[in-house]
Amino acid sequence: MKTWVENAWYVAGWDAEIDATPMARTICGVPMMFYRKLDRTVVAMRDACPHRMLPLSMGIKEGDSIRCKYHGLKLGPDGVAQEMPLKSDKVNTRVCAETFVVYERHRFIWVWIGEKAKADPTLIPDLWPCSEVSWTFDGGYYHVECDYRLMIDNLMDLTHETYVHSGSIGQPELMEAPLECEVEGDTVRLWRWMPGIDAPPFWRSALKKDGPVDRWQVCQFLLPSSVMIDVGVAPVDAGATLEDHDQGVRGMVIDCMTPEDEHNHHYFWGMARNFDIDDPGFTARFKTQQGGVFAEDKVILEAQQQAIAANPGLKLNAYSIDQGGVRARQIINRKMTAQGGNPE
Amino acid sequence: MKTWVENAWYVAGWDAEIDATPMARTICGVPMMFYRKLDRTVVAMRDACPHRMLPLSMGIKEGDSIRCKYHGLKLGPDGVAQEMPLKSDKVNTRVCAETFVVYERHRFIWVWIGEKAKADPTLIPDLWPCSEVSWTFDGGYYHVECDYRLMIDNLMDLTHETYVHSGSIGQPELMEAPLECEVEGDTVRLWRWMPGIDAPPFWRSALKKDGPVDRWQVCQFLLPSSVMIDVGVAPVDAGATLEDHDQGVRGMVIDCMTPEDEHNHHYFWGMARNFDIDDPGFTARFKTQQGGVFAEDKVILEAQQQAIAANPGLKLNAYSIDQGGVRARQIINRKMTAQGGNPE
Amino acid sequence: MKTWVENAWYVAGWDAEIDATPMARTICGVPMMFYRKLDRTVVAMRDACPHRMLPLSMGIKEGDSIRCKYHGLKLGPDGVAQEMPLKSDKVNTRVCAETFVVYERHRFIWVWIGEKAKADPTLIPDLWPCSEVSWTFDGGYYHVECDYRLMIDNLMDLTHETYVHSGSIGQPELMEAPLECEVEGDTVRLWRWMPGIDAPPFWRSALKKDGPVDRWQVCQFLLPSSVMIDVGVAPVDAGATLEDHDQGVRGMVIDCMTPEDEHNHHYFWGMARNFDIDDPGFTARFKTQQGGVFAEDKVILEAQQQAIAANPGLKLNAYSIDQGGVRARQIINRKMTAQGGNPE
Repeated sequence: MKTWVENAWYVAGWDAEIDATPMARTICGVPMMFYRKLDRTVVAMRDACPHRMLPLSMGIKEGDSIRCKYHGLKLGPDGVAQEMPLKSDKVNTRVCAETFVVYERHRFIWVWIGEKAKADPTLIPDLWPCSEVSWTFDGGYYHVECDYRLMIDNLMDLTHETYVHSGSIGQPELMEAPLECEVEGDTVRLWRWMPGIDAPPFWRSALKKDGPVDRWQVCQFLLPSSVMIDVGVAPVDAGATLEDHDQGVRGMVIDCMTPEDEHNHHYFWGMARNFDIDDPGFTARFKTQQGGVFAEDKVILEAQQQAIAANPGLKLNAYSIDQGGVRARQIINRKMTAQGGNPE
Repeated sequence: MKTWVENAWYVAGWDAEIDATPMARTICGVPMMFYRKLDRTVVAMRDACPHRMLPLSMGIKEGDSIRCKYHGLKLGPDGVAQEMPLKSDKVNTRVCAETFVVYERHRFIWVWIGEKAKADPTLIPDLWPCSEVSWTFDGGYYHVECDYRLMIDNLMDLTHETYVHSGSIGQPELMEAPLECEVEGDTVRLWRWMPGIDAPPFWRSALKKDGPVDRWQVCQFLLPSSVMIDVGVAPVDAGATLEDHDQGVRGMVIDCMTPEDEHNHHYFWGMARNFDIDDPGFTARFKTQQGGVFAEDKVILEAQQQAIAANPGLKLNAYSIDQGGVRARQIINRKMTAQGGNPE
Repeated sequence: MKTWVENAWYVAGWDAEIDATPMARTICGVPMMFYRKLDRTVVAMRDACPHRMLPLSMGIKEGDSIRCKYHGLKLGPDGVAQEMPLKSDKVNTRVCAETFVVYERHRFIWVWIGEKAKADPTLIPDLWPCSEVSWTFDGGYYHVECDYRLMIDNLMDLTHETYVHSGSIGQPELMEAPLECEVEGDTVRLWRWMPGIDAPPFWRSALKKDGPVDRWQVCQFLLPSSVMIDVGVAPVDAGATLEDHDQGVRGMVIDCMTPEDEHNHHYFWGMARNFDIDDPGFTARFKTQQGGVFAEDKVILEAQQQAIAANPGLKLNAYSIDQGGVRARQIINRKMTAQGGNPE
């Protein structure tokens, strides 16, 4: 039973993860392998030789082609046979590995899951801060042993920080500000606006300025499975609003969840920011810190997945704080139903 | 398919295992967590937050309440919500975790499996030597990867010692004495009376006296899954009988098997004794030795469970030595059938 | 669903693996244990005590009998009870463990899988070089986590050496010589004849002579699951032919694959040779080298088995180089169908 939307783009990997040497990763239940051609465009192919199914990711790169490590069947980047195991045999071009449409954007390699003909790059989630010139962006990867939707639930909620991240970013005072939520088409926005407060140390240091600030946290769910969280502060007198708040310093927490299968997902996380963008030391320090925080989520979500399996008579319940996740799941379920799927 | 009797008390843990910090343990297929309140009474709750199912055993104790580590839902020791994740939300007291009836007796924490209304402490197996003033009692715990009934079979048989424990307590001469067996209601007694023999070194040292002794071994099965083995010696001239043999030194081997699920159980073992009761050194040495002996059983029983799975065409057979286990299983099966179950 | 032919002999172990102490090994889904009697003939018995199923391989040898480690049931080498757990009990000779017909030949212990009455030693695959006086033979054992038929495919193909064994025995020039294939009854022969070439270093050193040689590689599949590969060189002027090539130096690569279950097999490999037969140093060095080469196959085949599971929509395809394996599988499938099985 598929738990994901089809005819959609999913992150297959960071741009830096994929190079000339094949990388294996199972996406939405399909074993795939990825590599870059000499022109640096990315090839995605089913990770099984059409001959005897040995993973092609174990194979040998020859120019832009891949030669299977078992009997040497050579396939071009289009997946079509270029040389049979016995070199003297006539090449049968119906021998081919399934290929997948990929697109590089916003520092990620995206792969299209669904009908190839419908692959449209304009449907790639608009993670604009990841490629905006005046911003910088970096992050990491975790394999998480849970349904990707549990991570969406987790990210579309701003209260769990208090408990899960009590030792790092959790701050009880965040709980005071009211939450607002809005659905617009296929996106959900959940936010908290904190006007005229003292900036916490991290943001004060980013702003390089004293005095009261407006602070915001805006979570945005984007189909099929990304969450962007807009965070930052601006001096009160700059007049920042929910719609327009580039007067101060902004960060965008970027989270892309790609189903590996029904019970596991690939978690690509990072932060884009519009300040100190030429300071790689800041980037490196922040990435380490963010990795630590998200590792705390990984522990919680994997325990949650196991508890779901161990308590078959129970179901997940939703309270007011879960409205963001609930609405994101409604959008996912609506799409899955329209595709003839059977959402939980 | 349940393999255990319901509406019965099972050992959840040693009294010393459970304290203010929650302890997780799955009992009869149900993930539970246990902790002590400030008044030292024990709370047993399903180990899943009613909100998003995170194990409550990962949570934070606040007084006698538990707060979930994920979103901070706070539950009282009665399992009922005391605070919602968003503190400003009205508390919904229908939000609650399932609780279980527990009772502390004979150095163990017992949990009632079945209909709460029927929980009756007088049904706790009468392991009287564990709490008798003139006796002392201690023991240990093993997780054993086999059906708990294989351990009952094992304990209701006094011949396996010769082979399984050949390096420790096995003694071929034990095999000479005839076995007798008796069923009375829901208990089975299996015994061997050895009149006028030389006491073996362990018992001679316990008796602190030379000369011929009467020796006994009396296994008793108690529903739902305990076995008590009365062992000891008395000087011949003291006139000990099967019914009354407190004239010498006695030990009671205590074994409580609690199903974790159909193929695993929690094994609580120990020995009570009515001699040298103020010698903690004796207790510690004996516990180490007994732990070694029962570890030998664990190896055998886990191999047996695997062999049962690997030989689906075979079945367990019973000979004369198995009469104790056979009758214990008949009692278990009769109860299970009466409860609409389907005993093997 | 069985994946093997019944009423056939399978290798249970090397002659040296089986001695007085029982050895456990699952053959064609049946847990078995093997030991040698004092007269050195081999006993094969189901590895489960007829009493409580404890593996008999954990038991205690007493003369030619085995005594179960749990309750001491003693069985003769014919599997029949010789002593009950309670020694005073009358022996019930209907109590017995299933035994299997075994035969020692060609340095292996063979076990008959199927109807006992049909067990006929003349059906043991004719691995004659393993017991020919003027030859010597040795080898090793690997447990391989794949269907045994994938190993047959692997061995009945002489091209994979180029890629799988590129660092060891692979040689691109082998690919030039044409392959020929022939089915005769239940055997398949696949060969390559390379007349008048320079001997490669290994064979030149074996031949101890310079000059052009005829070189051959002849793979032979033998029911139910052995492959023998005849390799060697002879001086051109000796007039070697495909049928008669004992003029030079010959090696016979011996491979016997025994299903453990549907997804795992026991791989017995070695090489017989008719040169330097009194040089145990040569044997030891060659065995180490051959073990390294076959470990490379193990990696490939286990990855292939996993890929088969991960790509349920794909199937194995066969090209010209696979003709040997295809025909071997046709013979296996024909036998399995005749036995009412359901070959893939």
